[in-house]
Amino acid sequence: MRSFKDLVTDFGNHFAVRHFPEQPSSLYEPNEYFLSWGGKRIRPVMCLMGNELFDEIHADTWQLATAIELFHNFTLIHDDIMDQAPLRRGMETVHIRYGESTALLAGDVMLIRAYEYLNKINPQYLHRILSLFNTTAREVCEGQQLDMDFEKMESVSLDAYIQMISLKTSVLLAASLEMGAIIGGASEGNCRHLYDFGKNLGIAFQVQDDYLDAFGDPEKFGKDVGGDIRQNKKTFLLLHALEVATPDQRKELEKLMQQNPADKVERILAIFRDCNIDEWAKSLKDKYLQTALAHLDAIAVRSVRKEPLQELANFLIQREY
Amino acid sequence: MRSFKDLVTDFGNHFAVRHFPEQPSSLYEPNEYFLSWGGKRIRPVMCLMGNELFDEIHADTWQLATAIELFHNFTLIHDDIMDQAPLRRGMETVHIRYGESTALLAGDVMLIRAYEYLNKINPQYLHRILSLFNTTAREVCEGQQLDMDFEKMESVSLDAYIQMISLKTSVLLAASLEMGAIIGGASEGNCRHLYDFGKNLGIAFQVQDDYLDAFGDPEKFGKDVGGDIRQNKKTFLLLHALEVATPDQRKELEKLMQQNPADKVERILAIFRDCNIDEWAKSLKDKYLQTALAHLDAIAVRSVRKEPLQELANFLIQREY
Repeated sequence: MRSFKDLVTDFGNHFAVRHFPEQPSSLYEPNEYFLSWGGKRIRPVMCLMGNELFDEIHADTWQLATAIELFHNFTLIHDDIMDQAPLRRGMETVHIRYGESTALLAGDVMLIRAYEYLNKINPQYLHRILSLFNTTAREVCEGQQLDMDFEKMESVSLDAYIQMISLKTSVLLAASLEMGAIIGGASEGNCRHLYDFGKNLGIAFQVQDDYLDAFGDPEKFGKDVGGDIRQNKKTFLLLHALEVATPDQRKELEKLMQQNPADKVERILAIFRDCNIDEWAKSLKDKYLQTALAHLDAIAVRSVRKEPLQELANFLIQREY
Repeated sequence: MRSFKDLVTDFGNHFAVRHFPEQPSSLYEPNEYFLSWGGKRIRPVMCLMGNELFDEIHADTWQLATAIELFHNFTLIHDDIMDQAPLRRGMETVHIRYGESTALLAGDVMLIRAYEYLNKINPQYLHRILSLFNTTAREVCEGQQLDMDFEKMESVSLDAYIQMISLKTSVLLAASLEMGAIIGGASEGNCRHLYDFGKNLGIAFQVQDDYLDAFGDPEKFGKDVGGDIRQNKKTFLLLHALEVATPDQRKELEKLMQQNPADKVERILAIFRDCNIDEWAKSLKDKYLQTALAHLDAIAVRSVRKEPLQELANFLIQREY
């Protein structure tokens, strides 16, 4: 059994090959350009871990993990077009470098290429894996659409936001684990628990991400702290604050969001603190993390096999900040 | 055995159901809107005919035909974004009506939904069908990219243009027939001939389409005759004319394309006629049609079974105009 970090290295080596034909280069060079930036490779590694929780990693699981990583990159290329993002990881996005039409097509063939890797796995699993892959792929698109819808809406309930986050990011983490587990020979019940572990872990991660954007230590967090607040981005924190604020606090929040004063971030953070949003967010994150870990606990395999997934949870969710 | 026209009606009835979930309606309503316009349904019917050439139509073939039609509609939604087309069949395109981001996502889920229908077919065929479907899907994207590349290039060889047309439109016609034939139990050799029948028929159709746009009878053709010439579109006719014209004719052609005088269409048509482009196009179309029919002839089934495919060829390729 390999640790999470070892698997990241192993998958990185496995994936560092050309994935597209040479010609037409006007279509495939953008794909290779985008893939050459690397990435955290969390989803394919989760797939490998889902397999290794139950059995040695099969050759098929490497093909499946590759399909998952290509699918994830397809969503990134198309999301960058929709968000009109000029940069990703400091590099020019595909649509900026090669034009929107080519970026659209490059994303399309990235998705089709993912299905080509899926079709390399043993036919005995193909129907079941394809079924989960297809459902998940469609849910990720639904999540992206809901995210765009919510940005235009005046008010969004916390429940609706959690549903959107779940579709946009958590289901792919969950399905990556489960698809690996299917090849590892896991029972239906174990598959279910593993899926729910991944789904809840993903939500906990997103709550943490929203928390750190507002309350994180800029030196440790790296990212531009307060960025979500400056952009009036709908986050767990803002949606809950709008639900629990007094009428005066709510009015003040809405005024700050409309008028964008220079001290907007500090003043909104002060309201968040007055409403105990920081403590609420930590406890919400903990609630999802605990639910995730309870599902991991319920999986019927020797506990030593679960250690890499506990390591993954610790990597994704910092307990203290 | 059913005629081509009967199958068009049968497939139309079969396909006239909702193909997407209700929610989120902001994502799926655009898909249903686009599908509600109908269409010629040539590709799915070719899939049914490919099956019926060898055996009664299996239940699986209806699922496969649905997947093919959804795939074709995915390409139309994304092509309309790339071409910035405001209308299709007189209706507002998806990106005009719902915005580009939603159109992009609607196309993505249309493709994923196609794979969901593919996954309904019997696992015994799944790997082989998926393999041909994936290759074809990627080739269609390659054809679209080459088409965009060619529009920006000063000169394109006729061979390169035929290769582009083949990828952009013919391979899907060919693969639709072959995928149906696979389910119908056809041998590899018969599959190969049927594929080549479809591929050559598709090229003959495109040559005819280019011919009719220039030389067609406006009353019979329906479309805006001369549209390709007005837009300086690279067609079989223009590319061949640029290859065979005298230096003076070539200079005149280039001048007309740059300056767009009011009588541009008539003057370019006059050069086409001087260069015998009309006769050349008819003989090119006949060459591909004859090659297609020779492949149909070579398929080892009783000739009465081939009648619907001959009817299809006659429907697509008019012998006289």
